[in-house]
Amino acid sequence: MQNRITSLFHIQYPIVQGGMIWCSGWKLASAVSNAGGLGLIGAGSMRPDVLRTHIQQCKAATNKPFGVNVPLLYAHTEENIKVILDEGVKIIFTSAGNPALWTQKLKDHGCTVAHVIANAKFARKAEEAGVDALVAEGFEAGGHNGREETTTLCLIPLIREITTLPLLAAGGIASGKAILAALAMGADGVQIGSLFAASTESSAHEFYKQAVVDAPDGATVLTLKQLNPVRLLRNAFYRQVVQAEEKNATPEQLKELLGKGRARMGIMEGDLENGELEIGQAAALIHQVKPVAQIMNELVSEFNKSTHILNNFTF
Amino acid sequence: MQNRITSLFHIQYPIVQGGMIWCSGWKLASAVSNAGGLGLIGAGSMRPDVLRTHIQQCKAATNKPFGVNVPLLYAHTEENIKVILDEGVKIIFTSAGNPALWTQKLKDHGCTVAHVIANAKFARKAEEAGVDALVAEGFEAGGHNGREETTTLCLIPLIREITTLPLLAAGGIASGKAILAALAMGADGVQIGSLFAASTESSAHEFYKQAVVDAPDGATVLTLKQLNPVRLLRNAFYRQVVQAEEKNATPEQLKELLGKGRARMGIMEGDLENGELEIGQAAALIHQVKPVAQIMNELVSEFNKSTHILNNFTF
Repeated sequence: MQNRITSLFHIQYPIVQGGMIWCSGWKLASAVSNAGGLGLIGAGSMRPDVLRTHIQQCKAATNKPFGVNVPLLYAHTEENIKVILDEGVKIIFTSAGNPALWTQKLKDHGCTVAHVIANAKFARKAEEAGVDALVAEGFEAGGHNGREETTTLCLIPLIREITTLPLLAAGGIASGKAILAALAMGADGVQIGSLFAASTESSAHEFYKQAVVDAPDGATVLTLKQLNPVRLLRNAFYRQVVQAEEKNATPEQLKELLGKGRARMGIMEGDLENGELEIGQAAALIHQVKPVAQIMNELVSEFNKSTHILNNFTF
Repeated sequence: MQNRITSLFHIQYPIVQGGMIWCSGWKLASAVSNAGGLGLIGAGSMRPDVLRTHIQQCKAATNKPFGVNVPLLYAHTEENIKVILDEGVKIIFTSAGNPALWTQKLKDHGCTVAHVIANAKFARKAEEAGVDALVAEGFEAGGHNGREETTTLCLIPLIREITTLPLLAAGGIASGKAILAALAMGADGVQIGSLFAASTESSAHEFYKQAVVDAPDGATVLTLKQLNPVRLLRNAFYRQVVQAEEKNATPEQLKELLGKGRARMGIMEGDLENGELEIGQAAALIHQVKPVAQIMNELVSEFNKSTHILNNFTF
């Protein structure tokens, strides 16, 4: 199967691994690329020197295409982009910010640019900015998330109506059947986060991966809506947020409670009580930590099996 | 196409019209059943005598199967069920309550019973109670909704994992492509609400239908979470709820603000400012008020076209 996403990124399967903070270093990204998907290094949690090392190690670990995800509102954005261009990475996924800021500059350097959106307004903005593809991320996705709370099932057809750009569905995709559903809705491919966050090659702490595996339905929640809405596992830190909100905490007080390094504490250091355990609703569908090669095999074989089942369906 | 849902309800297409308050009387239910789906009268907004009239008119308007939706926690539940059995209706969808309460009694009267759930716990409860089918309703659905906020895309595979019961996907389904996506995820059929709430045969007010047609993405919100979470269009009433919550309103104060008859005011009387305008996120995908026959034709033909497109996809 070849389609606009596989052609755009020169990959075998239209499966992109989301560039996540504290999860997706060179090990995860290169494993996904080696398995025929597109691996993304998550620059959001990396200083420029760390990012450079990860890019260099990723180049050493795969000769397949890989990319970097850059949240535009984070610290070090400009220096990180300088490193990415300097290292010759040609695929950049931008998120959490205005696509008009960097898209044209990146394209002038020969990069292929995708931008992550959660509503129609930013889809239009990204298209105007000249992006090559869109990632439409629904309410069920882990980590930072849109204010409209539009779910993947509603967001994909909504974005498909207003643009002909290559489109990746993100949020709630954790199986071959879900990939098929995303393509049925009009997406050209998928971006998968949670499933890879809990993979063997993820740099997240074992405790965090186990918490994802153990999560039942309803274990995640979109919170901190007064700051930037973020989906995470309910834990002691989350209950502190709820208590602060019940006492009418101001955004400043919530920022102070959040502090610095919460996500690192939770995801990388495995502090399940005090850390910020960002993950999507798909956590409830993840029952085992598996190596990336196995995950990719299962995604592809379940997808293929499911298309055959659907062949029997016609009204 | 025949499958477990079409066989269970003796219908042509595995498309159920959700039984909604103030929208789905005999006109809507009979139109859906006449078009090959399963129409449901929404008993939640009907006194027993009104329900009896709707059932009798529905019988006069179609010789196809139709059913009644009964929210178990509402007033008149017992009397309404007496009317349903007395009138010989053999398909009952229960929701908003404990499935153990009524399922066996209804089955003893020869009824086919489906129950609406939003999480794994109630799916298990419903199966234990002996229901014939489940409706799994995601966060994007209009009206009353689960506390877990699990989206349809995550809920369907989750429920599919734990039960082999016939399964209808609900929430965010407003196109043939979405039906295909639901079947790809493991559902056997769909329950569609919003699209029919805005149809010609819906008994909702024209102003309400136009508000649904005009709704952009982000226009709906899940609110009143301290009482029973409900998804509705943001309007003046919703802003009053937000203000009350900002002032730490108690559940009792919120109940008083909600008062009685808000949904009737909004949906049936067309008071767009003071009414409760229950509708799903799919509102953003609805651009025109159409007759049920046209809606059903479009759903089926888009579904068929989409399966053909997917036939070209194999990895």
